[in-house]
Amino acid sequence: MITKTIYFEDYQVGFSRETFGRTITESDILTHAGQTSDFYPHHMDKEWCATQPFKRRIAHGTLIFSVAVGMTAGDINPVAMSYGYDRLRFIRPVHIGDTIYTKATITEKRDHKRPSHGIAVEKLEVTNQNKETVMVCEHIYLVERKQPLEA
Amino acid sequence: MITKTIYFEDYQVGFSRETFGRTITESDILTHAGQTSDFYPHHMDKEWCATQPFKRRIAHGTLIFSVAVGMTAGDINPVAMSYGYDRLRFIRPVHIGDTIYTKATITEKRDHKRPSHGIAVEKLEVTNQNKETVMVCEHIYLVERKQPLEA
Amino acid sequence: MITKTIYFEDYQVGFSRETFGRTITESDILTHAGQTSDFYPHHMDKEWCATQPFKRRIAHGTLIFSVAVGMTAGDINPVAMSYGYDRLRFIRPVHIGDTIYTKATITEKRDHKRPSHGIAVEKLEVTNQNKETVMVCEHIYLVERKQPLEA
Amino acid sequence: MITKTIYFEDYQVGFSRETFGRTITESDILTHAGQTSDFYPHHMDKEWCATQPFKRRIAHGTLIFSVAVGMTAGDINPVAMSYGYDRLRFIRPVHIGDTIYTKATITEKRDHKRPSHGIAVEKLEVTNQNKETVMVCEHIYLVERKQPLEA
Amino acid sequence: MITKTIYFEDYQVGFSRETFGRTITESDILTHAGQTSDFYPHHMDKEWCATQPFKRRIAHGTLIFSVAVGMTAGDINPVAMSYGYDRLRFIRPVHIGDTIYTKATITEKRDHKRPSHGIAVEKLEVTNQNKETVMVCEHIYLVERKQPLEA
Amino acid sequence: MITKTIYFEDYQVGFSRETFGRTITESDILTHAGQTSDFYPHHMDKEWCATQPFKRRIAHGTLIFSVAVGMTAGDINPVAMSYGYDRLRFIRPVHIGDTIYTKATITEKRDHKRPSHGIAVEKLEVTNQNKETVMVCEHIYLVERKQPLEA
Repeated sequence: MITKTIYFEDYQVGFSRETFGRTITESDILTHAGQTSDFYPHHMDKEWCATQPFKRRIAHGTLIFSVAVGMTAGDINPVAMSYGYDRLRFIRPVHIGDTIYTKATITEKRDHKRPSHGIAVEKLEVTNQNKETVMVCEHIYLVERKQPLEA
Repeated sequence: MITKTIYFEDYQVGFSRETFGRTITESDILTHAGQTSDFYPHHMDKEWCATQPFKRRIAHGTLIFSVAVGMTAGDINPVAMSYGYDRLRFIRPVHIGDTIYTKATITEKRDHKRPSHGIAVEKLEVTNQNKETVMVCEHIYLVERKQPLEA
Repeated sequence: MITKTIYFEDYQVGFSRETFGRTITESDILTHAGQTSDFYPHHMDKEWCATQPFKRRIAHGTLIFSVAVGMTAGDINPVAMSYGYDRLRFIRPVHIGDTIYTKATITEKRDHKRPSHGIAVEKLEVTNQNKETVMVCEHIYLVERKQPLEA
Repeated sequence: MITKTIYFEDYQVGFSRETFGRTITESDILTHAGQTSDFYPHHMDKEWCATQPFKRRIAHGTLIFSVAVGMTAGDINPVAMSYGYDRLRFIRPVHIGDTIYTKATITEKRDHKRPSHGIAVEKLEVTNQNKETVMVCEHIYLVERKQPLEA
Repeated sequence: MITKTIYFEDYQVGFSRETFGRTITESDILTHAGQTSDFYPHHMDKEWCATQPFKRRIAHGTLIFSVAVGMTAGDINPVAMSYGYDRLRFIRPVHIGDTIYTKATITEKRDHKRPSHGIAVEKLEVTNQNKETVMVCEHIYLVERKQPLEA
Repeated sequence: MITKTIYFEDYQVGFSRETFGRTITESDILTHAGQTSDFYPHHMDKEWCATQPFKRRIAHGTLIFSVAVGMTAGDINPVAMSYGYDRLRFIRPVHIGDTIYTKATITEKRDHKRPSHGIAVEKLEVTNQNKETVMVCEHIYLVERKQPLEA
């Protein structure tokens, strides 16, 4: 892990990166249930799932989101901070043994009320091994400007 | 855990519920780093944190989000499904030993393109033991109607 | 999770509740071995188990007991406390991939030496996906009386 | 770990063994809550505990039982099997940072309906670093006889 | 676990012991990745592995080493301490579901610069269920002498 | 994580890199004990440790080794593979709350019997927050040559 300073002016709309795959395991679901206290039968009860339209246990939405975001953790940019997320949507279920990939693309830059900073939006698109989209969201970063905006 | 069917018509804007507290531990941060592969020094390096403005290790945003959402898992409503989340914002850092609480309030009901369903929005507000807000988001549910809308 | 006060007088012999299922996974066995330091080959060595009458790895008895009891954790009754357990018996082995269910029934109420409290006995019966009983025990609660017994 | 065959006839009432200590950690409580889905505030909410008579978070009874039993796992006796437990009682709470010890003593031998086996009872007494008893139970073993009883 | 004092003079070159088996699980790989931050696709990405010569996910070398060494932990010898390891080699990959065994043999005794101690070398050879060697190393112990060497 | 091909010819003796810090926690020790079955009181029993010269619980050697090696996992070099480790030595104990850093330096290149490959040696030196060396070892890589050696 290294530190690499990138100011707001140097974020490029359209810049895109893709991660390696990460196989989601039964062990992941158990760990996530254990961390979050969400033991819904959708995640924990194989027999009940078999009676439902989706047939098989489903990974928690918060698990897929957490892993997908974690996969994009790369260099440390000391002048950017995570501000939040918008439009997080779960498109398809992820089952045990599926492998997910995150594609992250800078889709927007906009001003922030603080003239010293700007907002950069990185769209995350998570797909599975069949190239189906399973989740999307927008990661909002607050990034320092080299040159503050004038009032 | 029990099953309790609540149709869209019976969601009440303004209905609110609050969880017990959950203390965020060093062990939680280690588990979450281990699940997500996010080993940024903000979470893992006590010495480096001591040199930063926030002084102490910070829980991952995705950890706080996952635990806060998990705390609201209650009865199973078979006619509702989680559709996604909007406007997730991290307001203040959560440190080791802080205790968080989630207050969930139905803030909005709106139509969905499918006349058989509606959208219910449950606002989550996460506070710490000092009653400071640390995170907010809107949980979007797609809920079946007893009575489909007419075309 | 909510708080719901139920005094000794209001415990009903014969009252019964059943949980959803919980699939016991390989990951559960690893976690439990890791917590308890019980690494007997019955749990950890697939090859050795294949040479034994039971053929496949077996979940620890303490794992099944802990999960089964945990599944009955519901509302918080501030006037009841867990006093202990009697007649815990392991009837059949639980293997990786089995799903267990707990049925809890109040089977007995009796006086306690403290006139302010009574003893309520809740029988736990744990079954698997084939409706075979795998474990039983009696959970002993010490519960406050609304009205203390007279001396 | 080694295999050591001990028949029923060779169990000695009064034989006793003591384990090393095991410090119960915050991490143990988190792991056990995560395995059992018991997230009662007694274990998970430091702030709420501070308002209660016991002041500090308490380890789950099933955690102490599981660890205490696990500590007694030693040699493998292929002619003995765990039959169950009687009179499990939680005497004092165990808090984060307490160290527990198990003393195991053979207290009783009795016939079993199968003439080929006998019942051996091993009493477990769990103490903390202050030599206070925190838990007791009787571990029931079904053990093969060298010489079956005559009918 | 018991304490058993063995001085340098009593280590026997050629003395050998073998462990029970330990099945390496998917859960082990997830836990080890989570502890070490090594999320290489060799361990975490089933789809990518399928495109490689080794076809299936591989356990981390450090996982196999850690488990294999742990399996040799037996009695506590208060006059011996672990000094380090030499010639650690990974001979064959270990895949999910493989079972490993450790054979430990004292292969060498030599003087140490401190006349009060000697060096004992215990060779560890780790095999899988097909009796193929997967890992070897030499565990170096520093052991107190009953009788210090004369200067 | 990215793929970056570096052939044997391009390894530079003297090239060095340093990691961020990683704080070793009580939770790490519990997880590692649970994975390896090494529950020696040196790691698990706070009270016993207090009676020993080192006073406080010590992280397992295999834990420090595993974490320190994991910290050096960076880009994927598809023409290099880990061959093993030499001269692994534990210099000082690591206690709960200590922060470790790994410095990795290419110290040697040598021929391998296969003319298509060479051996590169990367020395790992692990220090704590007081700049004391706690562990050293040599990581041996087998690296493909751009140009095979002539026979």
